[in-house]
Amino acid sequence: MSRQGSKLWGGRFVGDTDPIMERFNASIAYDQRMWDADIRGSKAYVKALEKAKLVTTVEMNQILQGMDQVCDEWSKGVFVIKPGDEDIHTANERRLKELIGAAAGKLHTGRSRNDQVVTDMRIWLRDAISTLTENALQLVSTMVERAAAEIDVLFPGYTHMQRAQPIRWSHWILSGAIAGTPLEIDRELLQKELAFDSISLNSMDATGQRDFVVEFLFWASLCLTHLSKMAEDLMLYSTKEFSFITLSDAYSTGSSLMPQKKNADSLELIRSKAGRVFGRCAGFMMTLKGLPSTYNKDLQEDKEAMFDCYDTVHAVLQVTTGVMSTLKINQSVMEAALSPDMLATDLAYYLVRKGVPFREAHGISGKAVFAAESKNVALNQLTVEDLSVISPLFESDVSSVWNYRSSVEQYSAAGGTAKSSVTAQIEHLRNWVKKQAQ
Amino acid sequence: MSRQGSKLWGGRFVGDTDPIMERFNASIAYDQRMWDADIRGSKAYVKALEKAKLVTTVEMNQILQGMDQVCDEWSKGVFVIKPGDEDIHTANERRLKELIGAAAGKLHTGRSRNDQVVTDMRIWLRDAISTLTENALQLVSTMVERAAAEIDVLFPGYTHMQRAQPIRWSHWILSGAIAGTPLEIDRELLQKELAFDSISLNSMDATGQRDFVVEFLFWASLCLTHLSKMAEDLMLYSTKEFSFITLSDAYSTGSSLMPQKKNADSLELIRSKAGRVFGRCAGFMMTLKGLPSTYNKDLQEDKEAMFDCYDTVHAVLQVTTGVMSTLKINQSVMEAALSPDMLATDLAYYLVRKGVPFREAHGISGKAVFAAESKNVALNQLTVEDLSVISPLFESDVSSVWNYRSSVEQYSAAGGTAKSSVTAQIEHLRNWVKKQAQ
Amino acid sequence: MSRQGSKLWGGRFVGDTDPIMERFNASIAYDQRMWDADIRGSKAYVKALEKAKLVTTVEMNQILQGMDQVCDEWSKGVFVIKPGDEDIHTANERRLKELIGAAAGKLHTGRSRNDQVVTDMRIWLRDAISTLTENALQLVSTMVERAAAEIDVLFPGYTHMQRAQPIRWSHWILSGAIAGTPLEIDRELLQKELAFDSISLNSMDATGQRDFVVEFLFWASLCLTHLSKMAEDLMLYSTKEFSFITLSDAYSTGSSLMPQKKNADSLELIRSKAGRVFGRCAGFMMTLKGLPSTYNKDLQEDKEAMFDCYDTVHAVLQVTTGVMSTLKINQSVMEAALSPDMLATDLAYYLVRKGVPFREAHGISGKAVFAAESKNVALNQLTVEDLSVISPLFESDVSSVWNYRSSVEQYSAAGGTAKSSVTAQIEHLRNWVKKQAQ
Amino acid sequence: MSRQGSKLWGGRFVGDTDPIMERFNASIAYDQRMWDADIRGSKAYVKALEKAKLVTTVEMNQILQGMDQVCDEWSKGVFVIKPGDEDIHTANERRLKELIGAAAGKLHTGRSRNDQVVTDMRIWLRDAISTLTENALQLVSTMVERAAAEIDVLFPGYTHMQRAQPIRWSHWILSGAIAGTPLEIDRELLQKELAFDSISLNSMDATGQRDFVVEFLFWASLCLTHLSKMAEDLMLYSTKEFSFITLSDAYSTGSSLMPQKKNADSLELIRSKAGRVFGRCAGFMMTLKGLPSTYNKDLQEDKEAMFDCYDTVHAVLQVTTGVMSTLKINQSVMEAALSPDMLATDLAYYLVRKGVPFREAHGISGKAVFAAESKNVALNQLTVEDLSVISPLFESDVSSVWNYRSSVEQYSAAGGTAKSSVTAQIEHLRNWVKKQAQ
Repeated sequence: MSRQGSKLWGGRFVGDTDPIMERFNASIAYDQRMWDADIRGSKAYVKALEKAKLVTTVEMNQILQGMDQVCDEWSKGVFVIKPGDEDIHTANERRLKELIGAAAGKLHTGRSRNDQVVTDMRIWLRDAISTLTENALQLVSTMVERAAAEIDVLFPGYTHMQRAQPIRWSHWILSGAIAGTPLEIDRELLQKELAFDSISLNSMDATGQRDFVVEFLFWASLCLTHLSKMAEDLMLYSTKEFSFITLSDAYSTGSSLMPQKKNADSLELIRSKAGRVFGRCAGFMMTLKGLPSTYNKDLQEDKEAMFDCYDTVHAVLQVTTGVMSTLKINQSVMEAALSPDMLATDLAYYLVRKGVPFREAHGISGKAVFAAESKNVALNQLTVEDLSVISPLFESDVSSVWNYRSSVEQYSAAGGTAKSSVTAQIEHLRNWVKKQAQ
Repeated sequence: MSRQGSKLWGGRFVGDTDPIMERFNASIAYDQRMWDADIRGSKAYVKALEKAKLVTTVEMNQILQGMDQVCDEWSKGVFVIKPGDEDIHTANERRLKELIGAAAGKLHTGRSRNDQVVTDMRIWLRDAISTLTENALQLVSTMVERAAAEIDVLFPGYTHMQRAQPIRWSHWILSGAIAGTPLEIDRELLQKELAFDSISLNSMDATGQRDFVVEFLFWASLCLTHLSKMAEDLMLYSTKEFSFITLSDAYSTGSSLMPQKKNADSLELIRSKAGRVFGRCAGFMMTLKGLPSTYNKDLQEDKEAMFDCYDTVHAVLQVTTGVMSTLKINQSVMEAALSPDMLATDLAYYLVRKGVPFREAHGISGKAVFAAESKNVALNQLTVEDLSVISPLFESDVSSVWNYRSSVEQYSAAGGTAKSSVTAQIEHLRNWVKKQAQ
Repeated sequence: MSRQGSKLWGGRFVGDTDPIMERFNASIAYDQRMWDADIRGSKAYVKALEKAKLVTTVEMNQILQGMDQVCDEWSKGVFVIKPGDEDIHTANERRLKELIGAAAGKLHTGRSRNDQVVTDMRIWLRDAISTLTENALQLVSTMVERAAAEIDVLFPGYTHMQRAQPIRWSHWILSGAIAGTPLEIDRELLQKELAFDSISLNSMDATGQRDFVVEFLFWASLCLTHLSKMAEDLMLYSTKEFSFITLSDAYSTGSSLMPQKKNADSLELIRSKAGRVFGRCAGFMMTLKGLPSTYNKDLQEDKEAMFDCYDTVHAVLQVTTGVMSTLKINQSVMEAALSPDMLATDLAYYLVRKGVPFREAHGISGKAVFAAESKNVALNQLTVEDLSVISPLFESDVSSVWNYRSSVEQYSAAGGTAKSSVTAQIEHLRNWVKKQAQ
Repeated sequence: MSRQGSKLWGGRFVGDTDPIMERFNASIAYDQRMWDADIRGSKAYVKALEKAKLVTTVEMNQILQGMDQVCDEWSKGVFVIKPGDEDIHTANERRLKELIGAAAGKLHTGRSRNDQVVTDMRIWLRDAISTLTENALQLVSTMVERAAAEIDVLFPGYTHMQRAQPIRWSHWILSGAIAGTPLEIDRELLQKELAFDSISLNSMDATGQRDFVVEFLFWASLCLTHLSKMAEDLMLYSTKEFSFITLSDAYSTGSSLMPQKKNADSLELIRSKAGRVFGRCAGFMMTLKGLPSTYNKDLQEDKEAMFDCYDTVHAVLQVTTGVMSTLKINQSVMEAALSPDMLATDLAYYLVRKGVPFREAHGISGKAVFAAESKNVALNQLTVEDLSVISPLFESDVSSVWNYRSSVEQYSAAGGTAKSSVTAQIEHLRNWVKKQAQ
């Protein structure tokens, strides 16, 4: 049995082509972004065809000139997409044929649409990553210079959202500069996958895998996850309760209901985008799962994901740069938030320097904290007598502990919060930025 | 310390508003889709304001008429979005003010933008789900009628992609009709969340949660995961090796390189969309994770996810209906694919009916399969003598086992593959479709 | 060509069975949790077999008594898993055979392993959801009673992490009680999917789909996403800077390094689990994507995901109940955090009551906020003269605006923060808990 | 107001410590796997302490010897975990103290638990990746040698699951060997992140980020996504309909119901694990999203995810190696599946060689395919007369097109399916394996 079903089971009429299917299948709406990459790819390909004597020199030149004209039309915004142009490759080839005639038909010799799509995507992404690299360098550079200018500001370091130890504000900025911009992955992607310095080892693998897309989507997700962390910190710091920083009006919005509100919308948007970009990565990986090898149309999901992640990261990096370059810090509030109990670890180290094992010193210091709480005084207001009840090793020189600046200066090991350490990080990052920008 | 940073650390110039931030913040590009929902919501709200004597009857009528005019402009495609219209709500209110003057300013009394956004989304989604429900009913109906028309076709049922037991083709179709369209969740969503038959129990919860969006995204993901399964089956069946079905040309495409190819692109696209939609769900859930309560701008990710999932499911359901109503089955190939070893379970049941415990009968039947393989004959070509060596209970009536149709007819319990069972499923689903469509 | 590969291409020796494959394939390590469900399922099944005359009454009784003994062994912790027991179903059947002999072999008549697995999972999950429902009711009940006891405490409501308007602390608690426990989904799952009040409509669909698992995983994800939101709020409130609440020591831990630290580890763990559970849901949905219909071994991923999500939600609900029942609130700090600018909306409403459109009143109030900031005084310290410069409608009765309690009492609509509204929410939830607990 | 809540709002009794919270908080159940890494890390650290004169040489030696004894106890399986050993670090330190007394307390000087956790994880993961690298090399090596041995077998290449062009079976194998094992990422991880050849640039960043974990989870997901693709191909090839390969019994299982079934469970398990591992990656990324900087307890989710992904990839690589080294190919069936229409592209190239533009030649060849279908003959059964009606350029030498081996030999460019190309790929991979294994 074999029959045409539409009459029997009441589906809507289906003629030669179902227009919904046609739209479902077409990618021109979004892949036209690659018009330039497609033209560059085709121009390179026709030169290879000529070398292989599959087109003549005359034909090659016709094609090259035709393609230049197509390029010109796109540049000027006058290229007209016509019905049947299902993707950018079809559109450019159709236009080429209109311009130069039959010779256009030779351009496709020995190359499948699938090859062409992958090549164009790699060219486009190479340019896109270049732009993102510049954006990221601008962000890092802004943060590094800010860290240099504000190196003398101390404020509480937090772990578990609880005050931990005094640190430099610049130390925090640099932790963001490092973590927020895992540029090295990026550069490797660029170099390894996209610089075309090697050819694909296996033709089946070349058209059927999209590792370079998935890796870009993952990199974008990890990058924005780091920026979501930085945004979360800054939102905390800009609450009324913390009041450590004030966002520029350029990155805040008001409330339609409450006249006094000034919301850190920019930071919330930055935080939210980690989800968006990760969703693209997750969705595309799910699409890939269990596909048979070589090309399947499922792979068409690659492009919208790639474009959306690029646009998102592009905007997020720029807005973050704007936020970081314009926020004001409230130094007096930041320093007022330092409290003597944050020096309890220093109190323990005082004893360690007198030979007490750290574990024991930690316990003694804890008792001092408890004693201060019981007497309802600050930790540094315990007298030497109070302390010597807890351990006879406490002597009058214990007063030297109660100094935030000297506490901070202890952490002069690499990566620490001492002025020298933070300055070294600044220098390291300045040099790195300089090297990357070359 | 507190200073304007832009000069010091070299970020690009940032004046009163950063245009990138403005674009980053604006949602008008996609939320204008809700223009109708926004107008309907505002018209309802102004009536409540009048009842609460917060606007006069005259003002209410001004607003209602103004809103009708705004509606008219959108319908005709002449509504002009202006700079500053950051979202559809602002745009409609701005236009209303141009049309009716100061009274427009009263519309917003006692309602925040956040309330308005949530209400508009619920109205829009209620309509959207209505459309998807119709699409899904059309698909189920197409499949049910196809199952009814082709109820006499047998073919191999597969588990683990290996031939298992003979089943009716209609049995397979109905398993897709049931699984592919978990409409009941849908209807509940509609009823429970969106029919507004109850009010929100807590105002903080009402503006800060987006359960109705997440549940829709999840429903869409689960629905398309089912359709990805159906698409996978159909792709298998349309390989040259299976050749059980032939897709209509309306849902196939050719190859740019290989002239003989006819690809089932429609099925591959259906399969791929499960990933896309799930990615939206995953991304939005990640955005929600760890947000503080009430409104945060992060929630703005809700709308693009909702729209994209709607558009995708809308297209997938229609294309699947088209595919299912136009594919041709190759009955002779399907039936030729039935092989005697698929009746090995029946052979075991033959012994069960003679009192052998199933586990033992299963073992004996396995030995028969092995004997046939050793002799390189089909299972039904073993003689009674061959079989009686394995078990003396095999007698000449064993020949009755080797009948695919009677094998299938054994499964007459509800849900089974016997003609009566499949007919009952058809009737059940026909009634269900009829009830839903009312 | 056809040959045994191991010698030629150097894979490790592979005999009849690869022990790594055996471990990879076996599920007994985790599915033994369903021993009770498996026994109950088999006991019900043998009764159906007897009714269908596929086992005799004597055999049925043998099997029932044997199964009771197996049950007894599991209960006492003396059941011994043997090599070859690849899953709980095999283990129980093997043991039954040891106990009652050949009759055990009849238990499996006409039911596949796949049927049995699905049935056992549904039985197990029904019980599991029952327990989670109790946990959730306990949490809601704790929160509701706390809300009732502390109804007179006011504190700032936040949107965008910025102070917005004064609200009742109880209002916040109830928003958590509602949002954190979307129990209704749960109950529907229980009722619709697991109460077995209907039979599967299609046998292919019954063994090949796992909607009931995916829906449970999704419910768990959404539930924990809500609890991650509540945990985030509580962490903010327990920072030194907010100091609104103090966690009980039972739910805090110290630092190994910093003696003064008291970390809200419980809240951080609650927040983190949303990711874990969502990961299980995402992973299983990805596993399902593109599977052919009916049973495939891929489905074996269902059980560990289900168990892990159950264990996680079970622990999270209990820990959250503990946290919520033992935290101390610092009422004076909470009320001191209220500031006059949070009444700017009330100032606008003062004008609305005098006939000013809300949009205009919002603008005037915004000017007042700006004037106060310029004069560096609190909003309520502007004199009537100051205010009348901004709008002549401000008169001496404006002083009535500056009262947090009366501000809060304005929101007496359903769901609002007025005492009567919050009391109504408490009553509603108390009744709901009572109804559920029946 | 401030009170102990348990009596008032009915939470269960909560004393000094809630045992559920304790279990919820503890990680010893799974992090004891890192006992060796923890001991090695501590032994290195005490040497640094001695150098910094924070412990004496005598103390250092006491600690080193004590740690060796702890190591010995773990190796022999006699280490006893005690109540209060909340993690492996606490357990080892507690035991050290029992063995050597007070000096043990000095080991923790100047290092936080968070530092220790991260260091141990990096040590453990470095070893784990080493093992996975070996597994992957074994898999690649098995596939390469198989490709070398079976280089003369041709079979259909598929795109869109439809027969496309004839290719070598070895070409398929190598596409799997390349794509399935993106080892280079792995090696970079090892080198860049884990070889400790550099120190962390910023201390806040060092304890608060888990990039090395996320990148491992992502690598595992991408690796298993590739293997899911290979498994899907092999499942197709092992269906009755394709019958290209037969899995070894060691990697197949039977059915509990159907005696004739032989299921490719191993392949289904391989395919399913992509979802599991991706779920771990997705879950952990969601946990990270929006966390404040530095350490938060949420990060504790890192370890179970890391262990589970390691175990899964470890098993999958070994089972895949087993499957690939033992499956039998059915060469005659594979070659019989080649059909003349797969040479339609060659027919077009025949015309291209006579000067016809490829687009036009593609159209002509398509017409030939259609003519053959209309006449119901194979494409190579069209006579020269039949063909010359379609294009006068077809001459008697067209018969040379109908040769699968010479068709395959055309693709001799790098990465192609010609014998020379495939041999080159084999050599390349053999060398690569040799280099990695050094």
